[in-house]
Amino acid sequence: MPKWEIVEGSLASARGFRGATIAAGIKKARGALDLALVLCDAPGCTAAGLFTTNLVQAAPVLLSRQNLAESHGRCRVLLGNSGNANACTGRQGLETARESARTVAKLLGLQPAQVLLASTGVIGVPLELGLITNRLPTLVANLSVENASAVARAIMTTDTFPKSCVVRSEVGGKPVHLAGVAKGAGMIHPRLATLLSFLTTDALIGPRTLQNLLRAAVDVSFNRITVDGDTSTNDTVVALASGISGIGVRPGNTSWAWFLEGLTQLCQSLAKMIARDGEGAKKLLIVEVQGARKPSDAERVARAIANSPLVKTAIAGSDPNWGRIICAAGYSGARFDPNKVDIRVNDLLLCREGMDAGFDEAAARKELEGKEMILRLDLHQGTASAHIWTCDLTHDYITINASYRT
Amino acid sequence: MPKWEIVEGSLASARGFRGATIAAGIKKARGALDLALVLCDAPGCTAAGLFTTNLVQAAPVLLSRQNLAESHGRCRVLLGNSGNANACTGRQGLETARESARTVAKLLGLQPAQVLLASTGVIGVPLELGLITNRLPTLVANLSVENASAVARAIMTTDTFPKSCVVRSEVGGKPVHLAGVAKGAGMIHPRLATLLSFLTTDALIGPRTLQNLLRAAVDVSFNRITVDGDTSTNDTVVALASGISGIGVRPGNTSWAWFLEGLTQLCQSLAKMIARDGEGAKKLLIVEVQGARKPSDAERVARAIANSPLVKTAIAGSDPNWGRIICAAGYSGARFDPNKVDIRVNDLLLCREGMDAGFDEAAARKELEGKEMILRLDLHQGTASAHIWTCDLTHDYITINASYRT
Repeated sequence: MPKWEIVEGSLASARGFRGATIAAGIKKARGALDLALVLCDAPGCTAAGLFTTNLVQAAPVLLSRQNLAESHGRCRVLLGNSGNANACTGRQGLETARESARTVAKLLGLQPAQVLLASTGVIGVPLELGLITNRLPTLVANLSVENASAVARAIMTTDTFPKSCVVRSEVGGKPVHLAGVAKGAGMIHPRLATLLSFLTTDALIGPRTLQNLLRAAVDVSFNRITVDGDTSTNDTVVALASGISGIGVRPGNTSWAWFLEGLTQLCQSLAKMIARDGEGAKKLLIVEVQGARKPSDAERVARAIANSPLVKTAIAGSDPNWGRIICAAGYSGARFDPNKVDIRVNDLLLCREGMDAGFDEAAARKELEGKEMILRLDLHQGTASAHIWTCDLTHDYITINASYRT
Repeated sequence: MPKWEIVEGSLASARGFRGATIAAGIKKARGALDLALVLCDAPGCTAAGLFTTNLVQAAPVLLSRQNLAESHGRCRVLLGNSGNANACTGRQGLETARESARTVAKLLGLQPAQVLLASTGVIGVPLELGLITNRLPTLVANLSVENASAVARAIMTTDTFPKSCVVRSEVGGKPVHLAGVAKGAGMIHPRLATLLSFLTTDALIGPRTLQNLLRAAVDVSFNRITVDGDTSTNDTVVALASGISGIGVRPGNTSWAWFLEGLTQLCQSLAKMIARDGEGAKKLLIVEVQGARKPSDAERVARAIANSPLVKTAIAGSDPNWGRIICAAGYSGARFDPNKVDIRVNDLLLCREGMDAGFDEAAARKELEGKEMILRLDLHQGTASAHIWTCDLTHDYITINASYRT
């Protein structure tokens, strides 16, 4: 199978796409980019999406879900804003989303159902329709390959850096691209989707196939991260495929595995960026659990550790406090024998068979002082494994969230 | 039914009990009390206990469970230490617990199975047996009614104040007492028990009845608090009944409801003290959910809100961010219509039918600036309700836990 390699670029590296961004005044900070438009010029474009499982769903989530179904996976436009989540805004919020889609569709000569919307920001504050519709003509006029590069920045909220990735492969001499942007930071504990990621490709894929591939890739990427255990009202991952490369992807064909590998690599890169940039985070923490009796046990243990405030503050303090790690494993609901558990940070053994391994304190601190570390648990009960990406819990998380809204 | 009133006192306010404490050098701080002994002088004393549901259980938990069973609920001694949890310490840890019990039993002329142990502190560090056994003769010699008053202090770790409560009732002119001490602070998310609470009474109660009463009271008190969602390896609530008041408590009798009321009042007082004194906490937050379809839905919503770092940091910042509250309710797993939810802080309406209620920002801030506040959710789906006590999440939680172990 052809390999995928990471290259420089933007959402428009996938041929057939253009983008534009603008400072629409939705964010309070003057001149901050907060509105982004992505268009696929290919009439045959297909679309797929995954959305939050929270019972409370933002207006753009409700509308995007509906538009994906109504267009039979034939959406061609992504309209995203930051600064306001348009969640808990009732009928008026839904009307704002609907009218935004109608306006942009009309400007582009498309159907309203071909527009996917995504919003992120404060919950429960009405999103002013005019801020969006007044800027749409300019946004449409500015659509270009170059202007697509600012989309990652325009969807940021408390993120400290824009999150973008492009991978490239070649089939029979023809290049194929997969590109993505994402935003994260807080309220990150996705279940079946995460907070705002837009993906593009120039591969040729039917909408149902694209949806299945997206679900498979998201399950081992965005669904493996947690920052604070809070699942958002706006989680949205959408993918558009222009087909312009001419390279087709079909189920039951080697093209499926090849494309899934690239899509997974792309989504994992973006997911790790989100974990690394968790609100206030200084470190990327990878929790790897092996030797579980079954996959669900491995995942439970990994999630309990990754969500434990006591583990995450210990990591912030570079404290090799394995007692908190085994404690979190113990209340995870997974079945295992605590007296068989080994715990390592990177390759350094902290705990052997449920007890202190007699490790060198200074060496352990050093492992934990890095920017990125792996906590490895071996339960010695079976062969199942799981991993979760998360971050440390620091003073800055408190500072950011004690005053975010106002 | 006779009423219960809160009075001054200690564990020895319940007649038939004596206590003693000592600085045994288990805590690093010089001269800090860290070992406590409570004895019931009545040979007919009965005992009950509830312990952590964590798969990883500390040595004193394992031994106390065994001793309760082996003595058929006839334990008469509580030996508690702070500074070391004696958890994840293997066979040697269990032997340390066993030998401590043997030594104190011998000094008191009792059976080892009549001793209940409880430890709290760092996990995974061997507990030095000599520190305990060398001090036991002095502790036994110092047993007195007066010395019982320091027990609450001797079991503290990161607690900022000792937690103690006594309630008193009268039946036919005869006084009856219920007394309790507790410690909390971090790793607080009890399921069926919480971190160290010792309870005494001079009522006359059979061991099985005492166990059933304890379970009923704990379920609406210690099991309703959370600080950080971490369930400890050492959670222990034990109760001893001396019988000296001569007032009997039996199931299927009005005495049952009367005693349960007092026991519940005692446990709720102690539980609220633990929530209020959560690590770094400045505020007690009471989450009350009503109008749920069923009790489990109400509890899920209350727990999700009480465990949400985003809600708890907003409370720390006195930010009336009801969007985070309804978001947590939405991912709790409970079924309800988000468009019917009302949210109040105390009596001030923040959210009506899932949307902003148009509240006065300054007034809402003022409600949240208090030392204690109630978040009230009405789901308008049915008649079930639940409450959880928790605290705000502050910088001090991070400071305490990034460096606790070392």
